[in-house]
Amino acid sequence: MKPKFTYVGIRVKDMDESIAFYTKMFEMELRGKYGIDTTKGKVASLVSQKDGFPLELNYYSKGSPFYRRYAVGEGLDHLCFQVDDLDKTLAKAKKDGHRVLQEVKTKTSRWAYIEDPNGKWVEIVQ
Amino acid sequence: MKPKFTYVGIRVKDMDESIAFYTKMFEMELRGKYGIDTTKGKVASLVSQKDGFPLELNYYSKGSPFYRRYAVGEGLDHLCFQVDDLDKTLAKAKKDGHRVLQEVKTKTSRWAYIEDPNGKWVEIVQ
Repeated sequence: MKPKFTYVGIRVKDMDESIAFYTKMFEMELRGKYGIDTTKGKVASLVSQKDGFPLELNYYSKGSPFYRRYAVGEGLDHLCFQVDDLDKTLAKAKKDGHRVLQEVKTKTSRWAYIEDPNGKWVEIVQ
Repeated sequence: MKPKFTYVGIRVKDMDESIAFYTKMFEMELRGKYGIDTTKGKVASLVSQKDGFPLELNYYSKGSPFYRRYAVGEGLDHLCFQVDDLDKTLAKAKKDGHRVLQEVKTKTSRWAYIEDPNGKWVEIVQ
């Protein structure tokens, strides 16, 4: 078998807030949520209902060996979601208080970036 | 249509070095590579030959509005690849000079973390 790109895990500052963001904004489905004793962390697995690729949310409490002060840094560049209606999605983002970082609406290209609750850039393309 | 999780983009310090890492270590296929004038950046799209989910590599040169000094930070937690033979993959990683960060081989669980050329954690599960 060729190696399978299985999921991507992003660190979150608050598990419930991030689950709410990805399930409400992008209709991802929460598949599971559990604690890991050795890392004093929590993990939640979300999948896109459209194609099933998992986004894992990783939370580390202060006593965890993996805990460090959260700074978004340059590890991730962005996540990308494709939607039917950019305007509707952006209206929802603004209503829910998520920062819109860029917005491009021309005849040939319609996309925007919004910020997730952890300060990560999330691209939305129509 | 439900929103589709389309790809994940990670920032890289050196495009060729990162393309080499992901194509050699995880047999990802390079689908395209292009420059973007407005961002003074480069983008490469890789897909896992097993399932096709794209990993985008994002590079910004020093004159780019998106350029900042690279520090891996906490935005990404890790990427995960599933392989047939963990020992073989780890031997290859060591031979190629990639740091192995953790290695767990028990009867019930076989996984490890290695570091990519940008200091990102990459999990390998068997």
